Amino acid sequence: MTKFSAYERLHQRFERMATIHEASAMLGWDASAMMPPGGGQARGDQLAVLASLAHGLLIEPAVADDLLEAEDDKQQLGLWQATNLKLMRQAHIRAVALPADLVEAQARANSACEKIWRQARQTSDFALVRPALQEVVRLVRLQAQALGEALSLTPHDALMDGFQPGIYGADVKPVFDRYKIYLKDALPQAEALQARRPAPVMPQGPFPVALQETLCRNLSQRAGLEADHSRLDRSTHPFCGGIPTDVRITTRYDESNFAKSLLGVMHETGHALYERGLPADFARQPIGYAAGMAAHESQSLIVEMQACRSDAYLGWLGQELHATFNGDAAPYQADNLGRLWRRIERGFIRVDADEMTYPAHVIMRFELEQALIAGDLQVADLPSAWNEALHALLGITPPDDAHGVLQDIHWYDGLFGYFPSYTLGAMAAAQLMKAARHRVGGLDTALSQGDFGPLLGWLRQNIHSQGSLLGFNDLMRQATGKPLDPADFEAHLNARYLADEES
Amino acid sequence: MTKFSAYERLHQRFERMATIHEASAMLGWDASAMMPPGGGQARGDQLAVLASLAHGLLIEPAVADDLLEAEDDKQQLGLWQATNLKLMRQAHIRAVALPADLVEAQARANSACEKIWRQARQTSDFALVRPALQEVVRLVRLQAQALGEALSLTPHDALMDGFQPGIYGADVKPVFDRYKIYLKDALPQAEALQARRPAPVMPQGPFPVALQETLCRNLSQRAGLEADHSRLDRSTHPFCGGIPTDVRITTRYDESNFAKSLLGVMHETGHALYERGLPADFARQPIGYAAGMAAHESQSLIVEMQACRSDAYLGWLGQELHATFNGDAAPYQADNLGRLWRRIERGFIRVDADEMTYPAHVIMRFELEQALIAGDLQVADLPSAWNEALHALLGITPPDDAHGVLQDIHWYDGLFGYFPSYTLGAMAAAQLMKAARHRVGGLDTALSQGDFGPLLGWLRQNIHSQGSLLGFNDLMRQATGKPLDPADFEAHLNARYLADEES
Repeated sequence: MTKFSAYERLHQRFERMATIHEASAMLGWDASAMMPPGGGQARGDQLAVLASLAHGLLIEPAVADDLLEAEDDKQQLGLWQATNLKLMRQAHIRAVALPADLVEAQARANSACEKIWRQARQTSDFALVRPALQEVVRLVRLQAQALGEALSLTPHDALMDGFQPGIYGADVKPVFDRYKIYLKDALPQAEALQARRPAPVMPQGPFPVALQETLCRNLSQRAGLEADHSRLDRSTHPFCGGIPTDVRITTRYDESNFAKSLLGVMHETGHALYERGLPADFARQPIGYAAGMAAHESQSLIVEMQACRSDAYLGWLGQELHATFNGDAAPYQADNLGRLWRRIERGFIRVDADEMTYPAHVIMRFELEQALIAGDLQVADLPSAWNEALHALLGITPPDDAHGVLQDIHWYDGLFGYFPSYTLGAMAAAQLMKAARHRVGGLDTALSQGDFGPLLGWLRQNIHSQGSLLGFNDLMRQATGKPLDPADFEAHLNARYLADEES
Repeated sequence: MTKFSAYERLHQRFERMATIHEASAMLGWDASAMMPPGGGQARGDQLAVLASLAHGLLIEPAVADDLLEAEDDKQQLGLWQATNLKLMRQAHIRAVALPADLVEAQARANSACEKIWRQARQTSDFALVRPALQEVVRLVRLQAQALGEALSLTPHDALMDGFQPGIYGADVKPVFDRYKIYLKDALPQAEALQARRPAPVMPQGPFPVALQETLCRNLSQRAGLEADHSRLDRSTHPFCGGIPTDVRITTRYDESNFAKSLLGVMHETGHALYERGLPADFARQPIGYAAGMAAHESQSLIVEMQACRSDAYLGWLGQELHATFNGDAAPYQADNLGRLWRRIERGFIRVDADEMTYPAHVIMRFELEQALIAGDLQVADLPSAWNEALHALLGITPPDDAHGVLQDIHWYDGLFGYFPSYTLGAMAAAQLMKAARHRVGGLDTALSQGDFGPLLGWLRQNIHSQGSLLGFNDLMRQATGKPLDPADFEAHLNARYLADEES
């Protein structure tokens, strides 16, 4: 009767599910960037119905049958199809591992906790959100347990696997332990060197929003993001959303400081370029998506941190900025922009951190959440554990919980296992940049003319077009000749922050 | 086992379907107002998958069983539930009447024809699109036949029923025949009177788009559309989309003429206010939607044609316009605005027509498409039949098919049965305005201060909040004391265009 093989049926089913997820992605963007507040309740319903329809397609009994049949028949498949089939199996295991009542309870608890957290952060009142967070953690432990059993992983590793497949605590711990040692020496040295240099000069605004927006759009397009396949809009929390053929990035503008929107847009442009470069032949298949959140962060950071803050690019950018905003030329000199945008400062807030201290914020969160999920740390003890951990790494103590344990939405929204991606991505970005510089001629010469072409071409070939064919370390190995190696990130920091000459 | 009655199960199912349709509505708005061109292909897939999911929910065998069971049990239901159940039955009949292969063939043929039509209209080349239109008409005849059999209606009536339920050819023909007679005398009289009056003075631009946009937004909100539940954006073809709690209206701007965007936005605001006023208790149920396209058009036209072009409102509006655009005050006098925006002119293009000649454009299309669906007129003969019909009604002949049979997208997109709604809506608007003036104190006094409150309050109570509880004529009867009566529209035209004093 049917003319389709089991693999073909799965292919069609995953395509249909992905198309539903695409609709959700666009509606999610709209909710953040466009929707009037009155549309919020209905939007929640729409997203819930779409999620349940997609989930329903994945847990139908036919899927298990088709997976077994396709796996029996997998010698018929090429490498991409066979890998795609493995990823389908992983998605199915995750989908059926969790009982429906747990999924529902988590959705309710996360949403309730997140609302209370907004209030608690405003008033710096951890006690207010503690009961809700206790419930979130209780349920996450159950989720991690169930996923871990299904995937033969420890509970926390099973959570990590949902963000960066194949990278677990045992991979991350040595990398993070090494960085703690590195930081102990490097940070005071960098601070001392910085103190001997001239203080940076802030460009004086106001910088009209319309000018900033045009500038951001131009720079993003010049970095390779095509206007025909993207939008740039505004939202309270900048992000990159949408789908590969229609990427939606957002930012927010501050009339007194253009740097936040500009560097933020370039960060999101890095994410967007990854989406744009994913293999179109495998669109809407598990293998056609980005290779995980650490891989994704490596692409935003190679644009924002590696390329945009390079001496080569800053020289060109400074001229663009002066041509846009006029006024005194001095603040727009490359060396001043470098001192402004490559400034080391021990601070309480992760999202404001410089690239040398940022990993410290991630490492302490990683260690705390491992302990939380394992049951070795209780929610009630989290604020003091937080403050101790920060002090141990950076020697500073938050003045209150709003500047401490309450600052990030992640845990209060049930998101555990994500944090390592930020630092793994930063390290991967340094490693990829080094390899690209080595393998592509004229990369910095091009950047000094505002041209991302050589860098982007190399990333498209080595990262973007690979989709999820390879695991994170294999992807790094294929692109750079070795798995993730924190030495390259340290070398990058040394060159930028510890050399007598800035670079 | 189950705790839900058959009616409750249907209620939940239709709610789920409606929520999917809401997602489609938002994505449709995005496609017209926001989407970069590169997103078009994926968007088509997303909308197709959502449509098929919603359709799938409606044709599941359980629906037929639940409908029968609920109908058996309908003495348990109140008036709204019982009527809702009838509308569910109608929706189900329509959904199962068409074989899936016909629906698919129509989707393909309509989409192909519409693409060719864009080219054909540009080059005024009917022959180019004729074969595609022949296929569209062939399939529409099959569709109309199948729907007619399922609904016990003639084929063309079955198509009409899809846009304005319960209003058929036999209802429309006498109304249109009467208007043809009215127009024969009224049009030359109105033209003669207009010729004796001073020519209107055009306000001189340019009118900056940003100013126009702010003005449109203010006027729309002042008419009662809440900013928290709506957006105003730009699109090539203005429309009102979105959902009742999150209405999205669009317009386009011309720097040399603010009137098109302003009156267009007020037209869409009328549609939007209807959506906003629908009964929230029955949201996402068939009875909670607007009472058909003629009813919808009555709400856009009562705002645009009746209220906004009234002497009372024009006096207030003129002052707003002058305060916005400055310059010479004379063009913004109410009497000049009246001469500008209530100008009669025989023309070829429906969408540019004044309110007296507009029905002629509708009547000829209605008669032509009835003949097409009945098989009494063939596609090849359409251009000459078009030109003869226009000449018979307005005494003018299009210079080419671009100004004739090629001007409207409807037929080329497979849309037959829609056109009467425009004129039924215009007539209903006049009848409703007369009743509102009669029953609500101070309606024009309020309009003369830019205040739509009294009119809107009456419409909310008598039209918007009724959802689809009543058929079109019963709705009119409840609101005005009689079914649709073209005499009120004629009286409106007489007062506005044939009286010695403008009104």
